[in-house]
Amino acid sequence: MTSVVCKGFKAAGVKAGIKESGQKDLGLIYSEKPAAVAGVFTRNCVKAPSVWLDMQRVRSGWCRAVIVNSGNANCCNGAAGMADAERMTALLAESMGLAAGEVLVASTGVIGKPMPIQKVAAAIPALTAECRDDGFDDFSRAIMTTDTVPKLVCRHGEIDGAPFTLLAAAKGAGMIRPDMATMLCFVCTDACAEPDFLQEALKMAVDRSLNRISIDGDTSTNDTALLMANGASDARIVTEAHRGLFQALLDDLLIQVARDLVRDGEGVTKLVEVVVRGARDTEDAKKIADTIAHSPLVKTAMFGEDANWGRIVAAAGRAGVPFVLEKMSVSFDDVRVFENGMPVKGDANANATAVLKKPDYAICVDLGMGPSQYAIITCDFSLDYVKINADYRT
Amino acid sequence: MTSVVCKGFKAAGVKAGIKESGQKDLGLIYSEKPAAVAGVFTRNCVKAPSVWLDMQRVRSGWCRAVIVNSGNANCCNGAAGMADAERMTALLAESMGLAAGEVLVASTGVIGKPMPIQKVAAAIPALTAECRDDGFDDFSRAIMTTDTVPKLVCRHGEIDGAPFTLLAAAKGAGMIRPDMATMLCFVCTDACAEPDFLQEALKMAVDRSLNRISIDGDTSTNDTALLMANGASDARIVTEAHRGLFQALLDDLLIQVARDLVRDGEGVTKLVEVVVRGARDTEDAKKIADTIAHSPLVKTAMFGEDANWGRIVAAAGRAGVPFVLEKMSVSFDDVRVFENGMPVKGDANANATAVLKKPDYAICVDLGMGPSQYAIITCDFSLDYVKINADYRT
Repeated sequence: MTSVVCKGFKAAGVKAGIKESGQKDLGLIYSEKPAAVAGVFTRNCVKAPSVWLDMQRVRSGWCRAVIVNSGNANCCNGAAGMADAERMTALLAESMGLAAGEVLVASTGVIGKPMPIQKVAAAIPALTAECRDDGFDDFSRAIMTTDTVPKLVCRHGEIDGAPFTLLAAAKGAGMIRPDMATMLCFVCTDACAEPDFLQEALKMAVDRSLNRISIDGDTSTNDTALLMANGASDARIVTEAHRGLFQALLDDLLIQVARDLVRDGEGVTKLVEVVVRGARDTEDAKKIADTIAHSPLVKTAMFGEDANWGRIVAAAGRAGVPFVLEKMSVSFDDVRVFENGMPVKGDANANATAVLKKPDYAICVDLGMGPSQYAIITCDFSLDYVKINADYRT
Repeated sequence: MTSVVCKGFKAAGVKAGIKESGQKDLGLIYSEKPAAVAGVFTRNCVKAPSVWLDMQRVRSGWCRAVIVNSGNANCCNGAAGMADAERMTALLAESMGLAAGEVLVASTGVIGKPMPIQKVAAAIPALTAECRDDGFDDFSRAIMTTDTVPKLVCRHGEIDGAPFTLLAAAKGAGMIRPDMATMLCFVCTDACAEPDFLQEALKMAVDRSLNRISIDGDTSTNDTALLMANGASDARIVTEAHRGLFQALLDDLLIQVARDLVRDGEGVTKLVEVVVRGARDTEDAKKIADTIAHSPLVKTAMFGEDANWGRIVAAAGRAGVPFVLEKMSVSFDDVRVFENGMPVKGDANANATAVLKKPDYAICVDLGMGPSQYAIITCDFSLDYVKINADYRT
């Protein structure tokens, strides 16, 4: 495997002893030059200190480094929590000769446990010593919690003949829902771009990707997506065409990240795209897609590989959007199972069951009411989901 | 066990062969005199023909009988579905010498399978022959689907010295959510009351009971609650005081039904009341209570007997209601586990874990923001829930 690199960025991941498992739990991304930065954060009313701190610091538009720990979310720790978040950035800044304001921070793990800041302090020399061009693999491992595989995605583009890279390291697992939930995602690019454009581009890409996935409908207090552009390549985003090209690549990158996050969701055995078409407007399509994607009865049927269109129809019916049952159709991939207010006869059920045995398919609902559509990525609800989440803290 | 009876009403439950299991699947409630009637129905956009038919017939304010089958919801069957629903009432009416318009109908079970109307027709002679004062136990068994026990609740009251009875037979199990989901509930009373009052009283009682329970957040196409008053006792509801007394008894009856339905929810091991206090208004309290009550992460933690206040705080935070974390507190029964933005130290966690081992307890969230409160009854999400719902249809 070739290493994933992005010009002018270094990264590391070490074992600080925060996780009881003894696995890597402290990560660093460092930019050799000041990087323009943008951030999108959890909309949960309860936000961790790291989120409050980053929201403030991202406003400057620039940063040099991000320090991230797993194993402890440093949330609901009172005043000590904010002091510890600031301290993490100060310790790293001191060790690397930066200003604390140039350092961002993210934490993920259990909440309400004091941050073992002395363990972080003790591990910082190793963290900075390990910091290398090809350190992103270690970094992506250091930010994992219940993830089973690290998530590292890369895309390459070209602007006026100058190549550039987009690299994303992310962690997800449970608690994923539209509106960014226990999800950390760090995107580095060696393209050169203004902070204002980056903020707009990140917001748009997140709305098209990370905000369209759902594992269990719950959200977390620590979600953070950061985009850093250090201009170490010769690719300069100046014109509208450049912006369009960069946006398309960023969208594509984050859609891949989103799919990887769902596929590795807690106990997930199926990746299911819910597509609602033929709605009067996008808002209607979104309401129905969200309701289907979050329905425990639909999700357990997906786990059971049961082509249960009835639960899909019933979930659509409670979304608060009026529709005419006789105009609606339901398909699994291209196998139509419901239309004209009735199940399709013949081989439909057997063919649909074959689709449901695949690890990856789409539920398509056409309302036959208008031109609008919306899609969301979800997953099944498995026995393992319950097992993992009944046992997580104890 | 003394039989449950309500003056002037008879009931029956027989085996018509609709259920593959061969259990009782056809039920009848019959009133010797015309009964004033009220109904509350599913708000799901997809409604079964039985619901459309009853909504129409209840408007007359009077009925004589209700025929109910389990094993087939007669929903999503196209035009044949409505014809079969009407046919069920016509067959019963014919056999009992009633007008079809005096007969109501309810169906529950799988959807999208043609109603075996000939089996219903063949069983009607037995159904009417079995119809007895003490037939409510048979009736309550005949309407069960994945319920493990029949639900039959009784309350006695007195108006100006005249005793009267309220009797409810219900079925529930999965797919229960506020807004009445795969829930059938038939209330008989021998008190005498006007249809308009009954409609108002039923609506209010349902809002205080059946609309405040949640098993999995899904809703069905067939939910029906009917209240029939035949005036066979000497209790006449005339004054405001009578109405208050009747309402209180009806509320109490349906709250008991609601609790029984949740306790017998699919795979339920815990009955949990979520109480949100200290909200600025009831709507805020309701949003937070609903979000906590439907959170898969909270519900799996309840199954795991894990005093995971963090998931409760995080669920509250995504309800769309602003609050100040430092003012909020979280308790399990009277064990405070979270306050001042931090977990409570000392024995709180051990004491809370003891509460969570009980089959029945409350999650109390106080926002410290105002005078309003709201409560909802929910349950845990267990391995058996997933097993039951992954295998239901196949």
